[in-house]
Amino acid sequence: MADTVKGGGRSERVAPRERILLAAADLFYRHGIRAVGVEAVAEAAGTNKMTLYRHFASKDELVAEYLRRAAATSNESWARYERMHPGEPFEQLREWLREMSEHATCADQRGCALANAAVELAEREHPARPVIEAYKVAQHERLVGLGRAAGLVEPELLADELHLLLEGARVTAQSVGREGLCARLVRIGEAMLERHRQGLPLR
Amino acid sequence: MADTVKGGGRSERVAPRERILLAAADLFYRHGIRAVGVEAVAEAAGTNKMTLYRHFASKDELVAEYLRRAAATSNESWARYERMHPGEPFEQLREWLREMSEHATCADQRGCALANAAVELAEREHPARPVIEAYKVAQHERLVGLGRAAGLVEPELLADELHLLLEGARVTAQSVGREGLCARLVRIGEAMLERHRQGLPLR
Repeated sequence: MADTVKGGGRSERVAPRERILLAAADLFYRHGIRAVGVEAVAEAAGTNKMTLYRHFASKDELVAEYLRRAAATSNESWARYERMHPGEPFEQLREWLREMSEHATCADQRGCALANAAVELAEREHPARPVIEAYKVAQHERLVGLGRAAGLVEPELLADELHLLLEGARVTAQSVGREGLCARLVRIGEAMLERHRQGLPLR
Repeated sequence: MADTVKGGGRSERVAPRERILLAAADLFYRHGIRAVGVEAVAEAAGTNKMTLYRHFASKDELVAEYLRRAAATSNESWARYERMHPGEPFEQLREWLREMSEHATCADQRGCALANAAVELAEREHPARPVIEAYKVAQHERLVGLGRAAGLVEPELLADELHLLLEGARVTAQSVGREGLCARLVRIGEAMLERHRQGLPLR
């Protein structure tokens, strides 16, 4: 599984902690968190369990850090939408809808790493759970904030609608399949946005 | 974990295969499929691994049967909606929306057993995958069929919208939380239904 750390020879230049996180992210995302042991992560990172435990107190801590990284990547996307459409919150929401619809239905994707983790980690006390919850709440607030900045009358409702639509899409892609799903998502989401723009969100 | 098989003393009256399935359903649903080993299932069922393997060739086969049961339970619900609202497909859809919204946001629930399994079981060749896919496709077709029977102009679109809304809700309940979610779901779903009833689904 050495190929899971991309870029040949990189293992010599990248610090062990980073290599472990890259390997863990790849394996956890593709196979599921519980399906992958620390031994497999250490091996894919070109290191060993002892080194892994020097950097992460437990597998649970490694999982939590993997999810913090995934959340940070999502924040970078939002910064990108803002650069693409400065001062246009409505267009930023549309950009997110389009990109997320593509992402959710892309064949090599398995949905949102944080939502999948919420399903896999049933234990309330797992250190990843506050990471997941904080991320999803912040995401929802961001959608509300953009809707409000766009002058919509019910920004919370739009945030709910978009959030549920895309969470549902990620699960659907994994169960029913992806065929035609992206186009349908964009169509439904654009109609949601349009109703809100016209000030008649529930009509 | 003997209490997972409900009804004290039942273990003496229920056949081993059934006891194993009841215990597996409870444990898999509450803790996740990967978090529970066959040893724990056998113990909760008041039997042993050897007996378990006499009835199920592998843990994967047990998982597939657990999901077939979950799908059958869902079919029973649809039969109930039909008895409640005979000849009224639109009302059957509303009944499903209301019940699923409550179910998705109920504190002791962890969403749809079949959707959760789709997230947990990344392997394409797992024997549970055809069970999950057949169920979700049939569910979608059922929604389309009821929408068509109700005379809606775009029954496929309504099926997509309702399906995505509730799949999204089940994940959201596990990540963001349940507070207020049920009421919001019913509000959004009722508005979807109403737009379709008025023949203007995307307005």
